[in-house]
Amino acid sequence: MRTPQVEQAAGLPERVTVYEVGARDGLQNEATVVPATVKAELIRRLGAAGLPVVETTSFVNPAWVPQLADAAEVLALLGPEGTGRDRPVLVPNVRGLDRALESGCGAIAIFGSATETFAQRNLGRSIAESVAMFAPVVERALAADLWVRAYVSMCFGDPWEGDVAVGQVVDVARRLMDLGCHELSLGDTIGVATTGQVPALLDALDAAGIGREVVAVHFHDTYGQALANTFAALREGVATVDSSAGGLGGCPYAKSATGNLATEDLVWALHGAGVSTGIDLEALVATSTWLAERLGRPSPSRVVAALAAG
Amino acid sequence: MRTPQVEQAAGLPERVTVYEVGARDGLQNEATVVPATVKAELIRRLGAAGLPVVETTSFVNPAWVPQLADAAEVLALLGPEGTGRDRPVLVPNVRGLDRALESGCGAIAIFGSATETFAQRNLGRSIAESVAMFAPVVERALAADLWVRAYVSMCFGDPWEGDVAVGQVVDVARRLMDLGCHELSLGDTIGVATTGQVPALLDALDAAGIGREVVAVHFHDTYGQALANTFAALREGVATVDSSAGGLGGCPYAKSATGNLATEDLVWALHGAGVSTGIDLEALVATSTWLAERLGRPSPSRVVAALAAG
Repeated sequence: MRTPQVEQAAGLPERVTVYEVGARDGLQNEATVVPATVKAELIRRLGAAGLPVVETTSFVNPAWVPQLADAAEVLALLGPEGTGRDRPVLVPNVRGLDRALESGCGAIAIFGSATETFAQRNLGRSIAESVAMFAPVVERALAADLWVRAYVSMCFGDPWEGDVAVGQVVDVARRLMDLGCHELSLGDTIGVATTGQVPALLDALDAAGIGREVVAVHFHDTYGQALANTFAALREGVATVDSSAGGLGGCPYAKSATGNLATEDLVWALHGAGVSTGIDLEALVATSTWLAERLGRPSPSRVVAALAAG
Repeated sequence: MRTPQVEQAAGLPERVTVYEVGARDGLQNEATVVPATVKAELIRRLGAAGLPVVETTSFVNPAWVPQLADAAEVLALLGPEGTGRDRPVLVPNVRGLDRALESGCGAIAIFGSATETFAQRNLGRSIAESVAMFAPVVERALAADLWVRAYVSMCFGDPWEGDVAVGQVVDVARRLMDLGCHELSLGDTIGVATTGQVPALLDALDAAGIGREVVAVHFHDTYGQALANTFAALREGVATVDSSAGGLGGCPYAKSATGNLATEDLVWALHGAGVSTGIDLEALVATSTWLAERLGRPSPSRVVAALAAG
């Protein structure tokens, strides 16, 4: 497998942490419900391929996301390997945190919204009410020495509100980070961002005391922009990137395309630019190919498709 | 149709010329042979959508590329609209130039290779022999006041030779430009380039007297890198980009995927970054959707897929 190697490209970090979201964000958006044993095997294989952080599942209400109703079972199958500080689990509220603690999780992620409309639609409450809901979650998680990530969704555009003001994103991010979260992930949930928006938001966050060192970016490839946007963030000094093995959750031909950035396409780009990740691309492609067979459709990752075509 | 608009992003050109290759590079790599009337209609619609340069077809030997055997017929259907200096046609040799001149063409493109192996396989001769073959083509074209573009393929990697030395690309480029060509298009024919390679090649060309103002870039999306690589070139001052309407010629799920950068994905990125193109994205998407119906498969462009899904 040939990844072209050059000297490290100017302006990029020496090393990037890939935060793998396929098992959670990917599978929750797939039509097919994958058995718990396959999910556990996926998470195991992602770890073996060198993914440094793997978000495992979500303790959301199973009625909302039946694809992940087996969260506790998946973690039980994995044992200690599935519950370290490098294996975060999404928790929507205090009930979710209870379940995560029962499973022995060492890290959690909460999921906020930059817009009122999406907060109402996704969380059933206003932004202020959702921050109030997250406050005891984060407080108790920190008391239990858990690592905590905060997602902010719709950072670059919203299907109902259109453009999203930078100040609005900063305000929500500031409120979540003030709870004590360790990391902030900026989500382009509908994939509409373009490269010019990225430095502006990062500068505004920095001015509000949220530096690049705690910021991750989470771009979707709905309009083919995810990798270009990610590189715009890397050139700004961001060094943590969310992506989904095999592009899980994002078939470009599906009506409900969410279009997660494929981890393979990201890793190809990073290794080619001389940025280290610790990831074994060949093992990762084999994992995504194995899972695609179980999902019954080809991976939307271009790297997986190209290497599979030989 | 919402393209997020921001102030023009720092470091990008104010305006980019999109050089549309779908009708030639795209259709010659499609399994389906499209009737001449549909090709003429495609070229007409691309012009009406504001594409400033549209490569129309190729006067290559029909035995090699049966998909474009009707080159003269397509140009006859178009009349003067298909033969301006903004409607180049590919010519492989003097016989091809004769046919282009008979059709009244005002612009041509020649297609060289940066590697000996691809020169032998694609042109049946060495690099030196191919330059010797192109010399009288360019000389006669310039004497007839035609605009001339030189493609160099395999600039960033070759399936047989692997890495391609920058000096090798510069040498071939220099020899073609010395013939008097007006523009040089750097082709990543197998899509393996990553962002770090781009500034290095542009610097080396500049040092050899080939400045950014005469350079175009032609990236393939085989590994999902085309847009990121294109933006690496734009930040370096390149202002002409090759792309293919609807991603023609590059179905990511096909064995023979060539993966042209989709013009729609490029235009979305450019307009979002405040770079003007003169292109009407809505009209372009409608054209690609219309053609996809005739090809019997969905467009691999993410923008076309997303907007078609509504």
